[in-house]
Amino acid sequence: MAKKASKSNVVAETPTKPGGGGQSAPAGSGVPQQNDTRVMALDLPAGTLSPAMQAYFDKCQEKLGFVPNVLLAYAFDNAKLEAFAAFYNDLMLAPSGLSKLEREMIAVVVSAQNRCYYCLTAHGAAVRVYSGDPALGELMAMNYRAAKLTRKQRVMLDFAVKMTVESDAIEEEDREGLRRVGFSDRDIWDIAAVAGFFNMSNRVASATDMRPNAVYHGQGR
Amino acid sequence: MAKKASKSNVVAETPTKPGGGGQSAPAGSGVPQQNDTRVMALDLPAGTLSPAMQAYFDKCQEKLGFVPNVLLAYAFDNAKLEAFAAFYNDLMLAPSGLSKLEREMIAVVVSAQNRCYYCLTAHGAAVRVYSGDPALGELMAMNYRAAKLTRKQRVMLDFAVKMTVESDAIEEEDREGLRRVGFSDRDIWDIAAVAGFFNMSNRVASATDMRPNAVYHGQGR
Amino acid sequence: MAKKASKSNVVAETPTKPGGGGQSAPAGSGVPQQNDTRVMALDLPAGTLSPAMQAYFDKCQEKLGFVPNVLLAYAFDNAKLEAFAAFYNDLMLAPSGLSKLEREMIAVVVSAQNRCYYCLTAHGAAVRVYSGDPALGELMAMNYRAAKLTRKQRVMLDFAVKMTVESDAIEEEDREGLRRVGFSDRDIWDIAAVAGFFNMSNRVASATDMRPNAVYHGQGR
Amino acid sequence: MAKKASKSNVVAETPTKPGGGGQSAPAGSGVPQQNDTRVMALDLPAGTLSPAMQAYFDKCQEKLGFVPNVLLAYAFDNAKLEAFAAFYNDLMLAPSGLSKLEREMIAVVVSAQNRCYYCLTAHGAAVRVYSGDPALGELMAMNYRAAKLTRKQRVMLDFAVKMTVESDAIEEEDREGLRRVGFSDRDIWDIAAVAGFFNMSNRVASATDMRPNAVYHGQGR
Amino acid sequence: MAKKASKSNVVAETPTKPGGGGQSAPAGSGVPQQNDTRVMALDLPAGTLSPAMQAYFDKCQEKLGFVPNVLLAYAFDNAKLEAFAAFYNDLMLAPSGLSKLEREMIAVVVSAQNRCYYCLTAHGAAVRVYSGDPALGELMAMNYRAAKLTRKQRVMLDFAVKMTVESDAIEEEDREGLRRVGFSDRDIWDIAAVAGFFNMSNRVASATDMRPNAVYHGQGR
Amino acid sequence: MAKKASKSNVVAETPTKPGGGGQSAPAGSGVPQQNDTRVMALDLPAGTLSPAMQAYFDKCQEKLGFVPNVLLAYAFDNAKLEAFAAFYNDLMLAPSGLSKLEREMIAVVVSAQNRCYYCLTAHGAAVRVYSGDPALGELMAMNYRAAKLTRKQRVMLDFAVKMTVESDAIEEEDREGLRRVGFSDRDIWDIAAVAGFFNMSNRVASATDMRPNAVYHGQGR
Repeated sequence: MAKKASKSNVVAETPTKPGGGGQSAPAGSGVPQQNDTRVMALDLPAGTLSPAMQAYFDKCQEKLGFVPNVLLAYAFDNAKLEAFAAFYNDLMLAPSGLSKLEREMIAVVVSAQNRCYYCLTAHGAAVRVYSGDPALGELMAMNYRAAKLTRKQRVMLDFAVKMTVESDAIEEEDREGLRRVGFSDRDIWDIAAVAGFFNMSNRVASATDMRPNAVYHGQGR
Repeated sequence: MAKKASKSNVVAETPTKPGGGGQSAPAGSGVPQQNDTRVMALDLPAGTLSPAMQAYFDKCQEKLGFVPNVLLAYAFDNAKLEAFAAFYNDLMLAPSGLSKLEREMIAVVVSAQNRCYYCLTAHGAAVRVYSGDPALGELMAMNYRAAKLTRKQRVMLDFAVKMTVESDAIEEEDREGLRRVGFSDRDIWDIAAVAGFFNMSNRVASATDMRPNAVYHGQGR
Repeated sequence: MAKKASKSNVVAETPTKPGGGGQSAPAGSGVPQQNDTRVMALDLPAGTLSPAMQAYFDKCQEKLGFVPNVLLAYAFDNAKLEAFAAFYNDLMLAPSGLSKLEREMIAVVVSAQNRCYYCLTAHGAAVRVYSGDPALGELMAMNYRAAKLTRKQRVMLDFAVKMTVESDAIEEEDREGLRRVGFSDRDIWDIAAVAGFFNMSNRVASATDMRPNAVYHGQGR
Repeated sequence: MAKKASKSNVVAETPTKPGGGGQSAPAGSGVPQQNDTRVMALDLPAGTLSPAMQAYFDKCQEKLGFVPNVLLAYAFDNAKLEAFAAFYNDLMLAPSGLSKLEREMIAVVVSAQNRCYYCLTAHGAAVRVYSGDPALGELMAMNYRAAKLTRKQRVMLDFAVKMTVESDAIEEEDREGLRRVGFSDRDIWDIAAVAGFFNMSNRVASATDMRPNAVYHGQGR
Repeated sequence: MAKKASKSNVVAETPTKPGGGGQSAPAGSGVPQQNDTRVMALDLPAGTLSPAMQAYFDKCQEKLGFVPNVLLAYAFDNAKLEAFAAFYNDLMLAPSGLSKLEREMIAVVVSAQNRCYYCLTAHGAAVRVYSGDPALGELMAMNYRAAKLTRKQRVMLDFAVKMTVESDAIEEEDREGLRRVGFSDRDIWDIAAVAGFFNMSNRVASATDMRPNAVYHGQGR
Repeated sequence: MAKKASKSNVVAETPTKPGGGGQSAPAGSGVPQQNDTRVMALDLPAGTLSPAMQAYFDKCQEKLGFVPNVLLAYAFDNAKLEAFAAFYNDLMLAPSGLSKLEREMIAVVVSAQNRCYYCLTAHGAAVRVYSGDPALGELMAMNYRAAKLTRKQRVMLDFAVKMTVESDAIEEEDREGLRRVGFSDRDIWDIAAVAGFFNMSNRVASATDMRPNAVYHGQGR
């Protein structure tokens, strides 16, 4: 049993600093560095931006410090970019019975079902920043069922997940469930619209291998 | 064996006219009539249309004879309607390497995966009308794998279905498969955009129980 | 914004007549015509029909105007044809607590789960004709949960679907559910027998690429 | 470490005789005895058998020592019993390019996918008896992929499983795969027919909670 | 109808002795004999056993008549064998609110979900021997929902299955369900630990093609 | 279009600092704070630690600054804790052809399939720290298929995922795939052992609602 005795000198868990031993030092880890330098896997030359879209990009640069890659992806065709931006901004930023944080929570929970790297990264950051609670962002991305939520929020997210995994099984009873916890029919539309949108956006991002701006990883930590 | 002898007087298959016998006459069929009189299950009063949207509805009425219910559903909020219409029209009607019929085929195949009554009805009609081939519409809605298609069309639809059922598993090899049969990167974007869109639209329609205009059922038969 | 202005001249939805524009005219649609001229993908020479089976085929021709392809598929072996026809006719046409329409509804709902082109086409037609309601046939094939049904019919179809997708999870509680809405044990047998049968027939049809008689597409529209 | 030392006196695996210790003696095991005394969960009084069916039951009793419960289940209606028996006997016993053992192997592999207690028990026994190899029966019921099979048998069973879990995805390439290992089109029909049949029979058995005759458990061990 | 008449001389079900006809005699069955002579598919030379492990193997040989193959599989590395044996023996044999039979029932039900040949064979035998009821072992392996169980046992097995197929959906309500039928928190740990363990063991066995000792097949029949 | 003009003043994406507007300020976000103060949902009083285990906990505290909650969870029973720690430390820290980083990558990829909050948090941190690449940790947790990996690493992770989602379908060809990219049979054992272990650990963690130490969230960012 000498072996076991020696083993009790070994600490079971994660190292406290990079490398943690010669066997797995970063330089020699053998795993390629994950630098997301391309916007996406499709080779689509940038189109000519309309003045409105150019101003929009400038505003992003000024306020965020970067232009989100999803906008750069759409920039090969100004009409598509404009339609996307208008649709997106109305959905996520216009007045609604749902707070911006709640809309972002739906975004992340749907993206977790679809395992979308772009959206989990960008909108996970948004949840962390809007809530000021890093663990909330992780929980939405990892398993929202493990999060502490109000009953109303939980019912909202369950509806979004049901829309994602078996939308054909949604019935009046599901809408009634939303109404019972206090959502209006207009709120239900907004929940459905956000959950629906990320079921689109996740798939377009995965289909084109869209990569998130690296800055998102550190936001709100 | 008298029973079996009598059975040989019975024809195995479908009746040739409604009712086919007292047991299941329409009037007494016991199944409620399927009249889709509501636009959707949410009670959202119509908003005020902008002149552009009013003109758009008038044009629909004039050229189609009706306003598609999906537009009526969005009409509770003119900004949302406008954003949706702009996004949709660019997607399905703007110039593309994909024909309008091919975009509608993607729409129906995706909607079949998601079992969306609204979209299967409206876009199944579009496939029948654009192609002039009623069976093609049925095949897209029932099982596209049973249809006769060119290799290129089949690869396109397989990609749309993979986006629908396991978008997280799409990789460069899938995009290469599209390129090998002749799609450009711009075409791939359009395939992804249409398949993505109906993954949104199917879910919003199911979440709100959106009902198709009855006229679609007979179109292109 | 000139582009968008021009777009507001475009009507969002389906064309009203075949072709709808040079881009997707049927002749040049590029999609092969869907003419189901083969009965199935297996090359099995027709066997010699017994007098009883010959009379049966004659009766089909006389009353329906055609012999259903499923019967032609089995005709390579008279014993198999006879066994199939006897089994099928007892199931779908013999006296039962379920109306013929209800049995056809089960057939279509099961076939929709299994995405069987042959059975959806042939039995979708039967639902349309028996009910006199084309939309009912579409709803059974697209998403039966979106149909207006009596509670009893809905419980019946839910049982048929559960049998189709997870028969190993059926328990006494499921049978009790059927009894509570008024089905007798004999009715339950019949529901199980019809749902079971189409789980066989769908699979044999798909495995052999059985093609429906084209005439079904237009029946009951 | 006294605890661990004492543990090394404990043998890790199964006991060699019933009970194996007071804690789990059969009499006090606390698990109800699994005596399958009912034929099924539906209360359907036995009908009057035709002379042919009575003779058939007598023959079963004489040659097998019992009447299989599936036949007793159908006996509430002589016409259904007759149709079932004729269909079944043609399928499993008539001349075919597939041996009876191969047909039983398909039966068990399909029944394992559907987790059907009745069919796994009755047809698992058949595989053991026909093959004289108890382990083969277990492997078909537990995981056919772990069995040693000829390439031809494996392709046959893979086709049966694909029919069971995603019949809508079967295409010409799958049939070609069967032809390449030596199956004729007639053999393919028989494979499809047997796999299809057990997809029916499994579901009817589960829907009615059909119980296997207890004698099957010990056959061919 | 001469054919059918002759068919009534054929008994529908399983043969009573091996071979049952020239067509499928064992010798000529064409199916390879299922002799599990290898321990697993990985070629790992046996390591040197510590005295404790050697004594353990000797004890197995003496009391069981064989060393279970899972132990032989681990024997390439004495430290791994020791860790596995200690973990396993504590789990399955240490005092617990669950009887040894109940722990084995969980083992088999989990292994059935994962279709693990090794574990179904070895632990199916344990259920048969501990309970003295061969049918119970079969039911756990085939479809535990078809077994007669106390309410408490059923809730326990349902929890084990939910852990197996969708562990991320387990919530406080599931634990409350266990408490309501009488399980303590310590019991819940033990249920979780056993169900978790076989989700590991099933996968290691399948990944390495571990083969059960042939003697298990006949135990407890 | 005045509305849209005003919308172009709105930036589409995530806020740059907590709160980002009165509507979703943390204090008033309405989402409960995610403070993981309990170790797990089962109420099991801490047992008496053996001197070896007490020393082990002290070592954790000294080197990591905390005792990982999984160890605290097992601490209700010293024998179980000891067996778990020995098993775990051999698996993840003993010499192996796989680096510690690679073993942690398997841990996270498996935990992502099972959506285990505890393991994704603790082992996601380990991947970030061992690799020195925060994005690598995110990619393993979100969608490993989107990561840049060597061919050998990808094949390893695909095997781990196949073990997780359909272990019964693993065959010699899968092991051959590992050998072809350079893994020895001993390496294959280690891959299988790590992937198997986290399929256990994920499930025990989810079944008991085990919560990660909060410190993990920030490690390696």
